[in-house]
Amino acid sequence: MEGKLKKFGFEVSEKIEKDPPSYSIKGVVSFLNEITNEDDRRLAISLGLGDPSRFKCFRTTAIAEDAVIEAIRSAKFNFYAPTGGIFPARKAIAEYLSNDLHYQLSPEDIYVTVGCKHAMEVTVKVLARPEANILLPRPGFRNYENFANLHHLEFRLFDLLPERGWEVDLDAVEAIADENTIAMVIINPGNPCGSVYSYEHLSKIAETARKLGILVVADEVYGHVVFGSKPFVPMGVFGSTVPVFTLGSISKRWMVPGWRLGWLATSDPTGLLRKCGIADSIKNVLDPAPLSPTFIQAAVPEILQKTTEEFFSKTIDILRAASALCYDKLEEIPSITCPQKAEGSMFVLVKLNLSLLEDIEDDMEFCLKLAKEESLVLLPGVTVGLKNWLRITFAVEQSSLEDGLGRLKSFCERHEKKP
Amino acid sequence: MEGKLKKFGFEVSEKIEKDPPSYSIKGVVSFLNEITNEDDRRLAISLGLGDPSRFKCFRTTAIAEDAVIEAIRSAKFNFYAPTGGIFPARKAIAEYLSNDLHYQLSPEDIYVTVGCKHAMEVTVKVLARPEANILLPRPGFRNYENFANLHHLEFRLFDLLPERGWEVDLDAVEAIADENTIAMVIINPGNPCGSVYSYEHLSKIAETARKLGILVVADEVYGHVVFGSKPFVPMGVFGSTVPVFTLGSISKRWMVPGWRLGWLATSDPTGLLRKCGIADSIKNVLDPAPLSPTFIQAAVPEILQKTTEEFFSKTIDILRAASALCYDKLEEIPSITCPQKAEGSMFVLVKLNLSLLEDIEDDMEFCLKLAKEESLVLLPGVTVGLKNWLRITFAVEQSSLEDGLGRLKSFCERHEKKP
Repeated sequence: MEGKLKKFGFEVSEKIEKDPPSYSIKGVVSFLNEITNEDDRRLAISLGLGDPSRFKCFRTTAIAEDAVIEAIRSAKFNFYAPTGGIFPARKAIAEYLSNDLHYQLSPEDIYVTVGCKHAMEVTVKVLARPEANILLPRPGFRNYENFANLHHLEFRLFDLLPERGWEVDLDAVEAIADENTIAMVIINPGNPCGSVYSYEHLSKIAETARKLGILVVADEVYGHVVFGSKPFVPMGVFGSTVPVFTLGSISKRWMVPGWRLGWLATSDPTGLLRKCGIADSIKNVLDPAPLSPTFIQAAVPEILQKTTEEFFSKTIDILRAASALCYDKLEEIPSITCPQKAEGSMFVLVKLNLSLLEDIEDDMEFCLKLAKEESLVLLPGVTVGLKNWLRITFAVEQSSLEDGLGRLKSFCERHEKKP
Repeated sequence: MEGKLKKFGFEVSEKIEKDPPSYSIKGVVSFLNEITNEDDRRLAISLGLGDPSRFKCFRTTAIAEDAVIEAIRSAKFNFYAPTGGIFPARKAIAEYLSNDLHYQLSPEDIYVTVGCKHAMEVTVKVLARPEANILLPRPGFRNYENFANLHHLEFRLFDLLPERGWEVDLDAVEAIADENTIAMVIINPGNPCGSVYSYEHLSKIAETARKLGILVVADEVYGHVVFGSKPFVPMGVFGSTVPVFTLGSISKRWMVPGWRLGWLATSDPTGLLRKCGIADSIKNVLDPAPLSPTFIQAAVPEILQKTTEEFFSKTIDILRAASALCYDKLEEIPSITCPQKAEGSMFVLVKLNLSLLEDIEDDMEFCLKLAKEESLVLLPGVTVGLKNWLRITFAVEQSSLEDGLGRLKSFCERHEKKP
């Protein structure tokens, strides 16, 4: 038995233990959490993950809780859901997304997934073809790269431009696309950048994609989580220019990432995707895949239709204040440059000026020392594709944010080169 | 755009539409449901799927509903769960499974999955190696074959013996295993057979697997759902003889398949699997995979520890009576042979005596005509690997079962060869 397992490569190896998981956001953050200073009398502070659900100020609305509770109590939703989700959930999501469009999505355009991450994987699996390639943003969300590797879809990276509010470098997109490029991914509102794209920029993205003959995959998991001057414009608005895969979830706007309720929507008013049998491809991928629990799906219509503006504006106000606080405090730290105040999502991406620091080689070392010395966890930019940057999550209680940014300032001051 | 999609094979094709999904149990049953006679004044009856949750008599216990509701209401479980599940859920599952063992599983032996089907996929992915093969039972549960195909793991089928209570043909196992065989799957209590394996038979399976140097994957999703003379013995009891992957879920014993809460447990008292780094392999597979919602995981300790014997015995009593009713009624139909009364799970597998029927070619035609003429859905054996057999689910309301079996009898009488 042991011999056979070894024959097939089952043995404790350095490689397996140090491979992708340690470079995943979850992996790095949990490692950093583990090394925070035990002797530190202060509590450890994590500004590493985009999960505000542990904080009281970000508790979800009672409407969402009640909707799920009612679905359980009814005992009508204990059955296996069909592939793609139960009809009322698909219909409600179609209507919710159509509110921001000039055309109507149908329930058949919607596929319920086990959170948005699952929608990412389904998208990559649907598009994976032996010779095809997909264009991904840098900085970006590492999951896309991991899924592309897992499902053998070649990926190529295009840059986002910090000096232009993290807009897509469309010249770079045109330069790296070729006849085998099938799609490009945008994340708007942006993770890890905190950017929100204007109507004009999205329109240019659509035109470029149309010119290249590629789909746009729009990761809108932070859809409507915006608090700057620009409104949230879904990519589906440009569905007539180019067909769009829209990925979303209730995780962020409702602050319930642990509920794992997401969706993939085909925003396809011209019917091009339907004509090319995309629906069958998606169903083939989803048929053997895990399903979102039926009673959570059953709660979706209530959640999407009944949540009050009051709940949304309260959380948006908190995030706006947190983003501003973050920006102001970072201004006081010479060794960190913040190219833009975050206007959406829950993050800001800032640059380390390593030349001003005396004993720090790169972002990873910065974060390791920061965790050890200050019990503060930030995400090194290398995990989102940008070495020597840092991603800071400001979706935490204000007191933790202030405390954390204070620790960051002390740390930087202590490590700054002496004149 | 259209050209590019076509280039990569996206076009409506007969092949895509008629491929695996239509041969999946879900696919076949939903097709048969669609063709039931619309003009029939009687309601359609489905004895096709193992999902009793729609019937009042199989409503889950209030303890399970309350546990989930409490977890939601606390607002403490809206966060992302870690890979493998939250500790209290893993600990509770370890204790639950250990109740039937002479050794103790640890929380680290448990991986929470999105239902048992997901645990199957994780198992296949963990074991998939370019040259390896896995042994699967025939009749069996088609998902294993589908996952093996999807993840490029060769599979070989061994027979279950109806004349010996659907025991594993261990001679066949030895004959088809070779030096590249890595594991064999058993499903106990049996789907689709309704069988329950004795301690002695499981012991022989363990000895055979040990001799061959292969793991045993024990699908125990119907664990404890037994109502005959034999008790349920988990394969993990033989963990010292051979390491076991135990797959399970709350879906069947608690009648909540739509909750999607399952597990993979490594029953490995000798530590062999741990030594060979299986835990890392499982984590590598689970890290990018969908997660069970955190609040459902949080309810697991209450569900596993607090559910009363009264609830279990009530459902077992109903299933025992249903199995007996099914057996007795089938005895009255000459063209159907039931080799054994079901003693576990929710199914019985019966043989069609086609020589007694005059206008029916095979099990699929039987089921098609049955759906059209009697608005009754049964599962053709071909979908579980045994042509010209039928799988009948008896986990339905008694009145539906009586009505359904009556329709089956009428149908067979009508189609019997005239002397």
